[in-house]
Amino acid sequence: MNGVEKGTSERSKASGSDFLQLDVGDAPTGGMADWLAWRLREAIADGRLAVGGRLPPTRVLAAELRVSRGVVTEAYRRLTEDGHVEGRRRGGTVVVAAPVDAGPGPRAAGQEQPAVMFPTAPGPEAFEVLRAAPASIDLTPGLPDLAAFPRAAWLRAERAVLGELSAADLGYGNPHGTPALRRAVAGWLARNRGIRADPDDVVIVAGTAQALTLLHPVLRADGVGAVAVEDPGSLGTRQHLENGGLDIVPVPVDADGIRVDALRATGARAVLLTPAHQFPTGAVLSGERRRELLRWAEDGGGLVLEDDYDAEHRYDRPPVPALRAMLAERVCYMGSVSKLLAPALRVGWVVPPPGYRDALVNAKRFTDLGNAVLPQLVLARLMESGELERHLRLLRGRHRRRRDAMIAAIAEHLPGAVVHGAAAGLHLTVTFDGAGGQTAAEAVGAGPAGRADAGLTGVTDTELAAAALSCGVKVQPLSWHRLRTGPPGLVLGYAASHPDAVTEGVRLLGRALRGR
Amino acid sequence: MNGVEKGTSERSKASGSDFLQLDVGDAPTGGMADWLAWRLREAIADGRLAVGGRLPPTRVLAAELRVSRGVVTEAYRRLTEDGHVEGRRRGGTVVVAAPVDAGPGPRAAGQEQPAVMFPTAPGPEAFEVLRAAPASIDLTPGLPDLAAFPRAAWLRAERAVLGELSAADLGYGNPHGTPALRRAVAGWLARNRGIRADPDDVVIVAGTAQALTLLHPVLRADGVGAVAVEDPGSLGTRQHLENGGLDIVPVPVDADGIRVDALRATGARAVLLTPAHQFPTGAVLSGERRRELLRWAEDGGGLVLEDDYDAEHRYDRPPVPALRAMLAERVCYMGSVSKLLAPALRVGWVVPPPGYRDALVNAKRFTDLGNAVLPQLVLARLMESGELERHLRLLRGRHRRRRDAMIAAIAEHLPGAVVHGAAAGLHLTVTFDGAGGQTAAEAVGAGPAGRADAGLTGVTDTELAAAALSCGVKVQPLSWHRLRTGPPGLVLGYAASHPDAVTEGVRLLGRALRGR
Repeated sequence: MNGVEKGTSERSKASGSDFLQLDVGDAPTGGMADWLAWRLREAIADGRLAVGGRLPPTRVLAAELRVSRGVVTEAYRRLTEDGHVEGRRRGGTVVVAAPVDAGPGPRAAGQEQPAVMFPTAPGPEAFEVLRAAPASIDLTPGLPDLAAFPRAAWLRAERAVLGELSAADLGYGNPHGTPALRRAVAGWLARNRGIRADPDDVVIVAGTAQALTLLHPVLRADGVGAVAVEDPGSLGTRQHLENGGLDIVPVPVDADGIRVDALRATGARAVLLTPAHQFPTGAVLSGERRRELLRWAEDGGGLVLEDDYDAEHRYDRPPVPALRAMLAERVCYMGSVSKLLAPALRVGWVVPPPGYRDALVNAKRFTDLGNAVLPQLVLARLMESGELERHLRLLRGRHRRRRDAMIAAIAEHLPGAVVHGAAAGLHLTVTFDGAGGQTAAEAVGAGPAGRADAGLTGVTDTELAAAALSCGVKVQPLSWHRLRTGPPGLVLGYAASHPDAVTEGVRLLGRALRGR
Repeated sequence: MNGVEKGTSERSKASGSDFLQLDVGDAPTGGMADWLAWRLREAIADGRLAVGGRLPPTRVLAAELRVSRGVVTEAYRRLTEDGHVEGRRRGGTVVVAAPVDAGPGPRAAGQEQPAVMFPTAPGPEAFEVLRAAPASIDLTPGLPDLAAFPRAAWLRAERAVLGELSAADLGYGNPHGTPALRRAVAGWLARNRGIRADPDDVVIVAGTAQALTLLHPVLRADGVGAVAVEDPGSLGTRQHLENGGLDIVPVPVDADGIRVDALRATGARAVLLTPAHQFPTGAVLSGERRRELLRWAEDGGGLVLEDDYDAEHRYDRPPVPALRAMLAERVCYMGSVSKLLAPALRVGWVVPPPGYRDALVNAKRFTDLGNAVLPQLVLARLMESGELERHLRLLRGRHRRRRDAMIAAIAEHLPGAVVHGAAAGLHLTVTFDGAGGQTAAEAVGAGPAGRADAGLTGVTDTELAAAALSCGVKVQPLSWHRLRTGPPGLVLGYAASHPDAVTEGVRLLGRALRGR
């Protein structure tokens, strides 16, 4: 309620607005600006407010809704901060970008039933099918805040690059990568990941998925036919390895990261790891495990494929240096801008062990003759000018607020869920086994809570995810990322959604799970 | 020297300039503006005039050189038209882009001897090594006029795209390609190549080289283990097929294109063709051969891989429709922007036979999860707005003048050479066998000339190419593109170089061949 006096039951309808049929009667007590921002965001997401369209002047909307003008101003301010609208003096407030939550995209798959979206044995197209499913809130993991993408800085850098490049730069490029970007990445890795690499050691690729595909022939030529992977571990990564004909050997993960004793027992010569923030559990590879792993690599000639997918995003813990920084000879390091800027850019880098470099460049040559040149030069500029570091600082602040919102909402709406890996990254994992990790109540500092059974015995997490989608919330089942069975869980991304959406998403999720 | 009075023998030197140590005494009679433009271009190419640097005011340079101001104005105008300099009112005339002829690039290979650049059995890195070799004039084939790249239009389109795209567009894209670009390509192919394809039939890839790599698993799954190729035919294409483990079956090419009777005799189930402008001979697949080929495909279940690499560039002949326009079921069509805009963009498209589409998209997914999104949206805009067609018309006019300059120069400096395939494309081929094709004298309408033996018996064309490089001109030996031996020849690209450079390059080439 908005504080204005109400009369009869008709009275409350008078406080509504033709614009989006907003009715302040729907707003929760005290959260008027939140509510308004949320409704506007929803309307932008589902296309009722189109990009390029104009919001009503604050004065007008406040009058229609019979709320103070400050409420509307605050709601617009949040959308502006979020990158969805932009104030333009005389042009008013204009919609400039739809939220990722329910943005445009192929909708054909939307006809499918939620249960069909979550097969227990997902194929390679599972992520695209899920991405295309309509939902009002998307809490799938793997995306940073895309509304924060530095469009203006990107365009400025592109203008500078187009002004400076020579005609020769527009010809066939170098499959190794543009020298300017290799220099910039070497500098970035030195500053941010403790890795000392010569620009010639860096190979530019189209993201980590491509890095894995390029490594197939290189690994095979080196006699590596099987790769150990973390279990649970990324489904997408595993699919990419298997597609190259490599055998997959699961190795269990615990709170200290991969179990190196179990790795040693498999006899595998190579292992794919996410040591800085294990996907999906969020565990950090402990110091003892690191030393053990490096002994495994040095003594037994083991090879570590280090997937450093979201290492730059951390909140409550000191930075974790890359394994590559400790043992260059046996570590093949992979990183990308997918979590720093946007996956749509398709730019990443590999710092392979010295003996692999030429073979990797050759594989890149045959795959696509090298990454496109303009985006490489633009990115090099953003890295060299400090703009990318500035962007990372901005993202960290935003992501932290979103994570905090998620943990608070889990404590409220999923009180028995156990939260894993929330100290860093773009996602967290919840399980419903009541074992390991902390409950959300503990994570927010509410002290050891009674670990209430979530009442989910006998239910699979694919069923949970389908139930959530029926309520308009998209999440990933933890079992997708498991090779061996384990307790049910959900992988929840918070970074790409506004805190209000995160909170609302978890509320709906709680309702979905209780309502099954 | 400047304009200070000089005495006797010093007099001619007095017409020189401190700026670049220009001496009009070096200029050929009557060609003063040509000469000056040439010297300036050379200085930009080798870095003496850096990008961002300023040329002297026309009045000042004319006075120093003691030439009319019109000569300097004309030379500056040519460089401006060429995209190397730009007039900026008070800022004067500023260098904005180095010519591709000797642009910046990895120079390490420049230490190599010319002969090392031209092995008789070139490996996959041969093109990069040659590209990195310094030369004052680059007549290697495969590039359009890169100085004409529409930088301003590209930037405008990018600004519009960045202003309009949603946050969701910045997430993981569709491996099939962005819908907007698939629509735009379908329209482009309908307008320019006579192909009727649904946007869903179009798969966006990172150029033709990637298209071939993506086809490997698709072909293998279809039981195709060998691919027939044109002989002579593109070395790069062949290397990409072989890298995928496919066997190569050479089929001879004559003036009517591939010999379909010979193709039939090989028993191969698939053939890779360049029907619109055969690489490197420039032959057009004749009507009779097309019908024969389509019978081969329909009756025998043959598959045609159509590499339509430079079909949009034609000068003295009507357009040749794509084979795909005639037989969709058995033709896998491949095109790209490499010859329309720039290879550095790494964007191309495949219109596969219906049964191959899903497998191709799957291969693309595993290779890189799909092309980068921003450049796809920018390109879609340039195609839909008509800017790309405008650019193509501009290129055609420029390329035709460059081709004419090359044919005229060959007539003068390589009178016995036989010219092949000059009616279209970005390159022509010369042979020194005196058989087939026309001599350059005939090509420029000088009537049937006596086919003088070029005096090159017993010399390999890799030796010719090495001799040319010693004189500062980069060309490709025809034998690189041959599977079976044949007369020596050179493949000469004209599209990427200014007419003056083309003329000078052919002059130097003539000197190199005579001087061996």
